[in-house]
Amino acid sequence: MPNAKAYSAASATSPLTSDTIERRDLIEHDVEIEILFCGICHSDLHAVRNEWSNTVYPIVPGHEIVGRVTQVGSAVTQFKPGDLVGVGCMVDSDSTCPQCKAGLEQFCPNVIFTYNSPDKHLGGVTYGGYSDGVVVDQRFVLRVPSNLDLAGVAPLLCAGITTYSPLRYHSVTKGQKVGVVGLGGLGHMGVKFAHAFGAHVVVFTTSPDKKEDALRLGADEVVVSRNADEMQKHTGSFDFILDTVSADHDINTYLNLLRPDGNLTLVGAPPKPLEIAAFSLIMGRHSLSGSNIGGIAETQEMLDFCGEHNITADVEVIPIQKVNEAYDRLLKSDVKYRFSIDMASLKSE
Amino acid sequence: MPNAKAYSAASATSPLTSDTIERRDLIEHDVEIEILFCGICHSDLHAVRNEWSNTVYPIVPGHEIVGRVTQVGSAVTQFKPGDLVGVGCMVDSDSTCPQCKAGLEQFCPNVIFTYNSPDKHLGGVTYGGYSDGVVVDQRFVLRVPSNLDLAGVAPLLCAGITTYSPLRYHSVTKGQKVGVVGLGGLGHMGVKFAHAFGAHVVVFTTSPDKKEDALRLGADEVVVSRNADEMQKHTGSFDFILDTVSADHDINTYLNLLRPDGNLTLVGAPPKPLEIAAFSLIMGRHSLSGSNIGGIAETQEMLDFCGEHNITADVEVIPIQKVNEAYDRLLKSDVKYRFSIDMASLKSE
Repeated sequence: MPNAKAYSAASATSPLTSDTIERRDLIEHDVEIEILFCGICHSDLHAVRNEWSNTVYPIVPGHEIVGRVTQVGSAVTQFKPGDLVGVGCMVDSDSTCPQCKAGLEQFCPNVIFTYNSPDKHLGGVTYGGYSDGVVVDQRFVLRVPSNLDLAGVAPLLCAGITTYSPLRYHSVTKGQKVGVVGLGGLGHMGVKFAHAFGAHVVVFTTSPDKKEDALRLGADEVVVSRNADEMQKHTGSFDFILDTVSADHDINTYLNLLRPDGNLTLVGAPPKPLEIAAFSLIMGRHSLSGSNIGGIAETQEMLDFCGEHNITADVEVIPIQKVNEAYDRLLKSDVKYRFSIDMASLKSE
Repeated sequence: MPNAKAYSAASATSPLTSDTIERRDLIEHDVEIEILFCGICHSDLHAVRNEWSNTVYPIVPGHEIVGRVTQVGSAVTQFKPGDLVGVGCMVDSDSTCPQCKAGLEQFCPNVIFTYNSPDKHLGGVTYGGYSDGVVVDQRFVLRVPSNLDLAGVAPLLCAGITTYSPLRYHSVTKGQKVGVVGLGGLGHMGVKFAHAFGAHVVVFTTSPDKKEDALRLGADEVVVSRNADEMQKHTGSFDFILDTVSADHDINTYLNLLRPDGNLTLVGAPPKPLEIAAFSLIMGRHSLSGSNIGGIAETQEMLDFCGEHNITADVEVIPIQKVNEAYDRLLKSDVKYRFSIDMASLKSE
């Protein structure tokens, strides 16, 4: 570094194109990483197209980064050149607030996200992982188990922790009945984790043709959510439901499937407000929660768990030159189940 | 018994008027109770006017019953004539389902409510506490501490347990910051309990003129919820918020006041679906729950706690002849904070 190759978008209506960006010179706690793979998250698309109205251009998206350490700062003790590492959605936080102290850096009021957050070193905003290299404080660098396929590891850094964290927080365990709503990038990871935790996993999908794949991923049952009779059979029986759907949908239907004291956690973010009938919560003391990625320590725990259980995301590997096409396909849910960009493809730019 | 004096309504548009009803002959586990006071709950009004579309007429409402034991069945071991007792919203359950075994009889699929539920002994539906006597299985009879004002004890059987239970379930304790939304029959009990548990209590109200009373009841602060600046100051700071408002209102405003991992529990039931922005839950891993009364063991615990801490509801005692007028006043929130019917007034009917 300081220069890196990257793909950036110049405006909400521009495609991502080849660019050269500045990365900071290594400071003492920094780790320099050669990026090998970067997953494509739906958030990348939201940000590139300014759908959350806060994008600073040019934007370099990407927060599912896997790579190899090339150089470390003088005070770095935990990593050395050659190590396989990952970087997720965050690259800095204040370390001093109650959230940081509780290992919930994602809720730190001063969290710095991997892209489109203020860059205190270089000015402007941070640039993400659609690039051949990045420099990150060691506190936000994760260790990647060596036995895993790296293209499939990349999505663990966002889709993985986003689904792992709520399952852990709500103590999903053997003997429980767990629902996963939606079988996309998030949902397919939810199924893998819930299955690995020993739960009886039921996938809810609007597409009957996803049944076979759901069973292969670890589901014990598949329910077509448009079939009211099939849904009705599960009334009051779920310990926990992970709702991964970002499109508008009726949450009450799922709340009514919870047993008393059951919880439904949203990790998707439908654009319109959810319409919740008070009785869906009051009857059975149900709760509806949200969850947003996970802290750094928990992300490391998730990666270690994946190493032990040989879990990765199911990915379609693409060269970066196909990223715009991949975005179009993402909007049609035409991917099983996550795109992972092979950064070797950036060398030809 | 078998006959008892009562006030019943003959249709959704009829006033409550004097009536004679049948109570069952004592069977072995039954306790016969002379009713001394019965609180008026907003649910009574909903039921009398068939606002939940499930009322069977004639209806005798009332599920905040306090009285004295007059007679017990041959197998009753826990009560004797002369004992002060209470009966809340339930009079029977199946005892065998997982909910009953967990002490959550309110979620038993075969729970029998104190009024307007199938009466397996006499046929028809159960009749509630707007009456001079009632016969109840001892499992659903509560012991009332002798040091408390009985008129103020009556509302504990519904408004009391409805607010006590979620505060306990969410482990409200000393040092926590707890909000109570709304200062009516439920809210004023929530304030008393949260204060007794040692929390820093903040009352949210739309009526600035309730401030003084809120402080008297145990609030540490009062926030006028229509004042956006005042609300803003509390962003991200609450451990727990108890929302007692049954009118439509914006829940997101309150969800945003929760600290990470904070919970907001609804005990009111607004008629329209709540519109919840997914981000209000996802950011800060917030949760939104419902709660519905409490189990029998917890109701007894609540009454014992009230005895130890000298807690009762603030009531306006009325003769039963004023019940229809009280309903009209209830709709205008014109009561501080709960009506309690003195059943001695029924003797003149």
